[in-house]
Amino acid sequence: MKNFYNLTKKELLQEKEKLQKQYNNYLKQNLNLDMSRGKPCKQQLDLSNDMLNINDYISNDNIDLRNYGILDGIKEAKQFFGNLLDINEDNIIIGGNSTLNMIYDVIARLYMFGYMDNTPWCNLEKVKFLCPVPGYDRHFDILEKFSFEMINIPIIENGINMDIVEDLCKNDESIKGIICVPLYSNPTGTCYSKETVERLAKMETKAKDFKIFWDNAYAIHYVYEKVELYNIFKACEKYNTQDRILYFFSTSKINFPGGGVSLLAGSDNTIKDTLKHLSKQTIGYDKINQLRTVKFLKNKENTLKFMDKHANILKPKFDIVLNTLEENFSNNPILKWEKPKGGYFVAVDTLEGLAKKVVVMCKELGVTLTDAGSTYPKKQDPKDSNIRIAPSFPSLEELQEAINIFCLCVKIATIDKFLL
Amino acid sequence: MKNFYNLTKKELLQEKEKLQKQYNNYLKQNLNLDMSRGKPCKQQLDLSNDMLNINDYISNDNIDLRNYGILDGIKEAKQFFGNLLDINEDNIIIGGNSTLNMIYDVIARLYMFGYMDNTPWCNLEKVKFLCPVPGYDRHFDILEKFSFEMINIPIIENGINMDIVEDLCKNDESIKGIICVPLYSNPTGTCYSKETVERLAKMETKAKDFKIFWDNAYAIHYVYEKVELYNIFKACEKYNTQDRILYFFSTSKINFPGGGVSLLAGSDNTIKDTLKHLSKQTIGYDKINQLRTVKFLKNKENTLKFMDKHANILKPKFDIVLNTLEENFSNNPILKWEKPKGGYFVAVDTLEGLAKKVVVMCKELGVTLTDAGSTYPKKQDPKDSNIRIAPSFPSLEELQEAINIFCLCVKIATIDKFLL
Repeated sequence: MKNFYNLTKKELLQEKEKLQKQYNNYLKQNLNLDMSRGKPCKQQLDLSNDMLNINDYISNDNIDLRNYGILDGIKEAKQFFGNLLDINEDNIIIGGNSTLNMIYDVIARLYMFGYMDNTPWCNLEKVKFLCPVPGYDRHFDILEKFSFEMINIPIIENGINMDIVEDLCKNDESIKGIICVPLYSNPTGTCYSKETVERLAKMETKAKDFKIFWDNAYAIHYVYEKVELYNIFKACEKYNTQDRILYFFSTSKINFPGGGVSLLAGSDNTIKDTLKHLSKQTIGYDKINQLRTVKFLKNKENTLKFMDKHANILKPKFDIVLNTLEENFSNNPILKWEKPKGGYFVAVDTLEGLAKKVVVMCKELGVTLTDAGSTYPKKQDPKDSNIRIAPSFPSLEELQEAINIFCLCVKIATIDKFLL
Repeated sequence: MKNFYNLTKKELLQEKEKLQKQYNNYLKQNLNLDMSRGKPCKQQLDLSNDMLNINDYISNDNIDLRNYGILDGIKEAKQFFGNLLDINEDNIIIGGNSTLNMIYDVIARLYMFGYMDNTPWCNLEKVKFLCPVPGYDRHFDILEKFSFEMINIPIIENGINMDIVEDLCKNDESIKGIICVPLYSNPTGTCYSKETVERLAKMETKAKDFKIFWDNAYAIHYVYEKVELYNIFKACEKYNTQDRILYFFSTSKINFPGGGVSLLAGSDNTIKDTLKHLSKQTIGYDKINQLRTVKFLKNKENTLKFMDKHANILKPKFDIVLNTLEENFSNNPILKWEKPKGGYFVAVDTLEGLAKKVVVMCKELGVTLTDAGSTYPKKQDPKDSNIRIAPSFPSLEELQEAINIFCLCVKIATIDKFLL
């Protein structure tokens, strides 16, 4: 492995010629490989097929779940998720198949009606949101849809730069929220430390209706190492700031992304306020699927064991990506990344100004990556360097080929930059 | 049967004494009967139990429906519903389990973002909606939530008073929509005539973004007589007003109220505009349940046969209500009603000022009815006379007892009014 920083111009040109030949070879192969979305693969989905054979519809307390009613979700689902996530079951609302939809709905309600007796956000001159970056594109898309101003907050080793967060929230009333994926974060794999959670719970906010969108999408989705997230409800209780919590979770990446169950948890006030609005919006979510989900996953212990099976499928895929990156770049520091402990992604940083180019080159060779910039609000990566790699969906063989091609494109793009 | 209008004061007092004894007898029985909500009964729900044994998840075009994707619904569901309702499948979006949620979402989008490049309704001084009355309480609740001004439009024999509708829409730009249940209407059972549909399609509206919310909830839910609704898409095509259609339907009262599939249909523009917003809101609805629904209902012919089974269960219940009303009031015109051809309700009108009193009296005897006034916006029935009777859920025996009690209470309340 050559360190490009130590090569002469001539050597770089020679290297480029060699790499270009490989590139041209790939070009002829008309490949079609996809490392773009964090989708479970077929083998993972098959783990839950027995769920589809569950045909019960009577709840433990003898309610016919085929019929209308039960706005906030069935009791056994609240108990199951409460126990799994260490949240009081009375502080949970069980929803439909999409957390994203739940997040959107919560934001729409705050926008149209406001939180409790606070001003609806649509009546404010400006609403700002803090966005840890790199982050989840669909979160940013929702915030952009509502024309909120998004402020980038750097992700750091064990969370986010809380000095900046505290300073901003303390002084700016128009900052109404922050949206976080606190464990195995999308795409960096970052796990928020106890200190980060505590500072989020404790910090002063000028906005009285400041909200922490706590999208714990990967709460139990470890790959290499189980990390325990400090309980934000417990942290907020200490400072009497529970009303700022909006906690989301779903079974999309436990069972079926297309047919899972989502969850919103919040303080007593938040649940009461949410149900007041929700009662006008729907009569209730799909309770048969709630029961199906709980009957299949059974309890916390069984669910955690079940997640081992996912980890066993995902680990070889993450190994391929991480080992290949290591082989190509450990002594050639033109690409940087952290090994994630879990989640669905490996985030890499090219040298400045190369991410878009690399993604386009990969696409030319038939390898689809998430668009460069997608991990930043409005798709604007100020350094044009972050790329999100999603290893879960392709087969091992496809993934190996795709990541080889990715490394090739990074090298060519970097040599071109050096030769400029 | 005595006609109260022909009785002397003395005879009314004698009648009241007799009825009051019956009332007191019921009072001792601590009954618990419910004619309040349009819920299918257990026997109806049991018709669809086989649906829960369907465990397929691969679409006809070989897509794995367990995974993410397909925002607008699976192809076979669009084909099935398009064929069932005579709507172009490209003009259909398949949703989650609740039409009400879909209606709420559509209104929220018009409120927050506006239709195409029209002003979002939240930025307007005033938004008014036309509400055919008596109507569906949950529709009115949504409109009230958004602080829209609701204007009562009288339901007449074959639809609604279109003279009033045309006059209002032509002259008032702030009138943004009308919300209709055009077939076997809730609660009157009214079926809109071809003329009514055509006039809705043809009429001039001062608001460019005027919308007809066409909640065809009972499209195939006949009890006594199958009525064909004139196709509003065809009507609007003639006048190039397709953009005003927002068509809703669901399988809630075909299969399971808690686990059905909903549908939104609209013009090409409406579908395009809706998907633009919806793509930020969710990745997709529960496609496994969409497939389950279609595999169970199969096709139009089978579905219509299936609805015969519902009708066979519902007919004896409607018979009990209608026959008992007939027996009690055919020669004593203190209560008025129309025999519905289908749907879930019988709407009755007491003499002015008696509906609330009757509902309270029934409640005292253990018979729950929908709150008086519920069939009007803000629960304000100007004549306090309309009561919605929902015969579907109780058993035949319970229903007979409940409707007997209802008739008794109507008589006592009416005598009290006469004696004032």
